[in-house]
Amino acid sequence: MDSVDSLRIVIVGGVAGGASAAARARRINASAEITILEKGPAVSFANCGLPYHIGGEIVDRNKLLVATPELFWNRFRISVKTHHEVIKIDREEQIVHVRATSADGNAQEITFPYDRLILAPGAEPVRPPFAASFPRNAFQLWTLPDMDNVLAYLKNQTVKRVMVVGAGFVGLEVVEQFHRLGIQVDLVERNPQILTRMDPIFAKMVARVIESQGVRILTGVSVESLDLENDIAVAARLSNGDRVETDLVLMGIGVRPRTVLAANAGLTIGSAGGIAVNEFLQTSDPNIYAVGDCIEYTYGVTGEKGLNPLAGAANRAGRIAGQHAASGDAEMMGPVFGTSIVRVFDCTAAMTGMSEKQLAQRGIEFRTAIIQATNHASYFPGASNMHLKILYDDPSGQILGAQAVGGDGVDKRIDIIATAMQLGGTVYDLAKIDLAYAPPYGSAKDPVHIAAFVAINDLQHTPRLTLPDTDLSGLQVVDVRTEKERQQLPLPGAIPIGVDELPTRWIELDPNRKTVVVCHSGKRSHVGASRLVSSGFQDVLNLTGGMSIRSLT
Amino acid sequence: MDSVDSLRIVIVGGVAGGASAAARARRINASAEITILEKGPAVSFANCGLPYHIGGEIVDRNKLLVATPELFWNRFRISVKTHHEVIKIDREEQIVHVRATSADGNAQEITFPYDRLILAPGAEPVRPPFAASFPRNAFQLWTLPDMDNVLAYLKNQTVKRVMVVGAGFVGLEVVEQFHRLGIQVDLVERNPQILTRMDPIFAKMVARVIESQGVRILTGVSVESLDLENDIAVAARLSNGDRVETDLVLMGIGVRPRTVLAANAGLTIGSAGGIAVNEFLQTSDPNIYAVGDCIEYTYGVTGEKGLNPLAGAANRAGRIAGQHAASGDAEMMGPVFGTSIVRVFDCTAAMTGMSEKQLAQRGIEFRTAIIQATNHASYFPGASNMHLKILYDDPSGQILGAQAVGGDGVDKRIDIIATAMQLGGTVYDLAKIDLAYAPPYGSAKDPVHIAAFVAINDLQHTPRLTLPDTDLSGLQVVDVRTEKERQQLPLPGAIPIGVDELPTRWIELDPNRKTVVVCHSGKRSHVGASRLVSSGFQDVLNLTGGMSIRSLT
Repeated sequence: MDSVDSLRIVIVGGVAGGASAAARARRINASAEITILEKGPAVSFANCGLPYHIGGEIVDRNKLLVATPELFWNRFRISVKTHHEVIKIDREEQIVHVRATSADGNAQEITFPYDRLILAPGAEPVRPPFAASFPRNAFQLWTLPDMDNVLAYLKNQTVKRVMVVGAGFVGLEVVEQFHRLGIQVDLVERNPQILTRMDPIFAKMVARVIESQGVRILTGVSVESLDLENDIAVAARLSNGDRVETDLVLMGIGVRPRTVLAANAGLTIGSAGGIAVNEFLQTSDPNIYAVGDCIEYTYGVTGEKGLNPLAGAANRAGRIAGQHAASGDAEMMGPVFGTSIVRVFDCTAAMTGMSEKQLAQRGIEFRTAIIQATNHASYFPGASNMHLKILYDDPSGQILGAQAVGGDGVDKRIDIIATAMQLGGTVYDLAKIDLAYAPPYGSAKDPVHIAAFVAINDLQHTPRLTLPDTDLSGLQVVDVRTEKERQQLPLPGAIPIGVDELPTRWIELDPNRKTVVVCHSGKRSHVGASRLVSSGFQDVLNLTGGMSIRSLT
Repeated sequence: MDSVDSLRIVIVGGVAGGASAAARARRINASAEITILEKGPAVSFANCGLPYHIGGEIVDRNKLLVATPELFWNRFRISVKTHHEVIKIDREEQIVHVRATSADGNAQEITFPYDRLILAPGAEPVRPPFAASFPRNAFQLWTLPDMDNVLAYLKNQTVKRVMVVGAGFVGLEVVEQFHRLGIQVDLVERNPQILTRMDPIFAKMVARVIESQGVRILTGVSVESLDLENDIAVAARLSNGDRVETDLVLMGIGVRPRTVLAANAGLTIGSAGGIAVNEFLQTSDPNIYAVGDCIEYTYGVTGEKGLNPLAGAANRAGRIAGQHAASGDAEMMGPVFGTSIVRVFDCTAAMTGMSEKQLAQRGIEFRTAIIQATNHASYFPGASNMHLKILYDDPSGQILGAQAVGGDGVDKRIDIIATAMQLGGTVYDLAKIDLAYAPPYGSAKDPVHIAAFVAINDLQHTPRLTLPDTDLSGLQVVDVRTEKERQQLPLPGAIPIGVDELPTRWIELDPNRKTVVVCHSGKRSHVGASRLVSSGFQDVLNLTGGMSIRSLT
C-alpha cells in the first residue's frame, strides 16, 4: 500500500455512484488527493427525477442539481472537473488520458495520474435503429441536457401527440408526465407486455391503469421506421403495418453499461456485459474499482452476476469502493435483488427478487401464492386494495421473489420482503414478523402475513394452491362465489356452491375426483377448499388469486 | 389425542385472537365442534377503530363490526354464543361453567364440555381510584358499549372541554378525535413524558406536535380526585394542586390482562402477570390454550416474557392456537418486539424492540444512532422529515431497537427494521438491504441505510458517536453550523467553524484534546469529525442527532 499521504484517487463520472465514492473516500482519508472527472456539465444530478420535471410535477429544475463542484471542493476538498471525458486508461503508467473541453469549446488532451481509479461511467440509453437519423423530435431521457431538449421542444412546438417507445420504468414515468400536460400518448412496447421485469398478470394490472387514463398501449409491436418531414418525425411505421402519427418520440428502451473504457484497458467484462468486480468493487486490476450501472452485481437467490441499473445499489457500491480505495478495507457489498418500484398514475408497481419468468428460465422450481388485501384496516377511511404475489421454494419456504401492484403501502410490503430476502428468510419467517399495526397503517394481519399464511398453507397442503392459468378441463371445479359474481365473471363448467352453502352441500361433490375451488380473490376458496380437505377429499386445490387474477391470464 | 370426529373446541372470547383461533381450527378440522363463548354483545369488533369513530373519522359504526355470529355459523359452522360469560373452568371434568344472559336479561348458569379450551378473554382497562365512584361523564374506551356511551354523552350534553387521562396509544388517538370535534382537550399523564414506551426525546417530538394543535399536556401529574356535581365530574384535582375544570373525563391509563378465570383454575400465571404459555400457546394444562392480551409473550432481543396487548400478535397467536388445538401440530409462535405505531395529527410515531430505558433497566449495553432524513427524494414534492433512532450492540451491531417520529414512511422504516430484528439482523445487514427506490417512495440512500451507515461509523470509530445529552463542559466542542443556525439554537462554549471552513481551519484546533463536533442533525458534524479523525485527532466524537435533538434533552 502506498503512503496514505500521497494517495491519488481519481473517479471517472460523478453521477452513478461516483460522488458517493468520492465523499466516502474523503471521510476515511483526509490527505488523499481526490478528483472527479465528469464528461458532462453537472457533477451530480438527480437522474431519477428527470421524468417528473417534464410534466411539471417537480417544478424547479434546480432541485435536480444534487451537488455543485463548489460544494465538493469547499466541504470535502474534492476536485471536480466537468467537461472532462476520460478517453483512455494507461494501467502501466497509472494515468488516465482526458479530453478536456473549455468553456469556449476548445478541447485538449491532458493526463491525470492515479493510485486508485474508480470507474463510474454509468450506462447509456440504447438508441434504436429507427432513430439512427436523429430526427429533431426524437429524444431519449437520461441526462439533464436530454431533459432540457425535450422541454425546449415542447415549449417551441405544438405537441398534441407523443409516442413513448419502451414500457419500462422511465417509459411509464414519462407517459404519466406527458399525460399531465394534456398530451395524447401512445405507448409502444416490443415485448408482449409492459414492465418486462414483472410477470405478465401483474404487468397487465398496471397496463389497465394506464389505459384507463386514455393512453393507448401497443404491445408486441416495434417501431420499424419513422416518416420524416424536414428532419421531423411525423409518424411511426410499426411492425404490425400500422402508421401512427406523432409530434414527438420519446425513447425509453433500456440502457446498456458503459464499458468501452474498461474493455479497452483490458479489464474483465462479465458475461452479462458489465465490468466484473469483486465484493469490494475491485475490477480485475485491484487498483481500479468500478461502481454503478456499468458493473455486474451479484444477485441474491441465484448468486449469479447481472446488470442492475438502479440508483440504490450504485450508491451503496460507491460508498464501499470509496472506503476501500481510501483505506484498503471496507464492508463487503451485499447481493442485489433487483428491487424496484414505479408509480404509474395512482398505482404503484414494485418487485424484488426473481420473477416467475426468470425462475423458469433457470429451471428453478418454485411455488406461487397471490393474495388481495387492503393497505390498512378496511374499516379505516382511504383503504385501497393491493395484489401481492410471493414466489418461494418447496419445501424450505425460502423466499425467491415478490411482486405487488396497488396503491399506498405497496412499497412497504416489497421492502419488508426484500429485507427478509436479504437475511435469507422464508415464508415461515414472514408469517411471524411483528409489524407495526394501527388502523391508518396496516391490519392486524398485514398483507405480508396473509401472503405468508397462504404460502404456508400451500407448502403444508392445507390445501395446496394451483396457478391462475390452470387448465380446469376435466376437473371438478367448485365456484364458491355469489350468484352476482358468477354473472360478472363467468367460469363455465364450474359447480356453483356458495361458500356459506358448502358446509351442507359438500356432500353433493365427488371426494375422489381432483377438485379445484375458486372464488374472486382466493380467500373464500381457501375456506371452501379447507372444508373439502378436512372432509376427506383426496386432491383439492385452491386457485390462487381467484377469478380476479384468472381473468387477466 | 381424542378421535378427531368428536373434538370439542371451546373458545372463551371472540375478540383478542379468539375469532382467529376459531376460524383456523375450522379450516384444519372440518368435523370438530367449535364454540365461541363471548360475554359481550359482539363476537368480533374492531377495537382499534373505536377512537376514530368518536371524532367521526370512521363515519359508519357498522364498519367496526368485523364479523357476525351468522357469518361464523354459515361459513365456518362455528357456534357463537354472545352474552355467555365463562365463570369457571373445571379442568377435572373438562367443562366450563357459563352465565348465559337472555335477551330479556334473565341469567342462568349452564355448562359446556370441551376437549380443547382456548382462552381469549383479552385485557381490561385499568380503572383508576379517582373514578371509583363512576361519575356519569367519566369513560373508558375499550368496548363498543364504551364507545357508544361516550358518543351518547357527547350528543346529549354540552361538552366543551375534555380531560384525557393517560398518554398512551389510545389516549393520544382520542385526544386527536376530540380535537376534531372542536373540543378543548387537556391531556394528563402521570409519568414525566407521554408515550412512556418511547424514549423521552422522541416522545417530546410527539408532544410538540400535539401542543401545536392547542392541546394542553400535563406530564408528571396525576388526577387525585374528581369534583362531582349530581354524579357529574366538573373538575379534576391534580397532584400538583391544580384544579382543572372539565365536561368529560376519558381514561386511557392502560390495560391489564384478564387472568382471573385462568388463575382460579390453577393455570400458571407468569411473573409479568399474564397467563403463561408455550410456543404453541398451551397453558400449564396442555388441553387449555390462551391467546391475546391475557398472555405473556416471549420478547425478542432478551428472550424474556412480557405482556404485549397489541392486535397483531393476538391474531397470530390465535391462528397458531387454533391450528394446534384442532390438529396437535402448528408452526411455533415467534418472538414479539413490541412493534407499535400511533398516528397523532399529521405525525406518526413508531417503535420496535427495546427502548434505551428498557435496555438500561436490564443492564444491557447499547449504542445509539439518531438521524434525520426525508421520507422520499427531497427534490420530489411532498418530502417530509423524519427522525429515526436505532439502538444496537457493540461490537456485533445486532439491532436492539428502533424508534421513529415523522410523517409518511415512518411505518415502513420501522417495519423494515422489525423484519431485520425478527431475522436476527445487524446494522451491517441494514446497510445492505436492496430497497425499492423511486423518487415518490424513498431515496437511493434510504433513511434505514443512513441510520445503518451512521451506526457502522460509530462501531468502527469513523468517528465515534456521543449521546445528545453529553456533558460538553471541559471538552473541545466544534460547532460546524452556519452563523444563522448558531443564533437560532446557541451552543455556548463551542468553537464556531463552519463545515466548509474546516478543511483550512482545523489547524486552529488542538488535536490532543477530546473533541466533540456538532451540527444541526449530525450529518455535517460527521463530515467535520471525519476530517479531524483522519487528520490525526486522537479522540473525536460526533454528537448524534445534532442540535435538533440536543435541544430536546
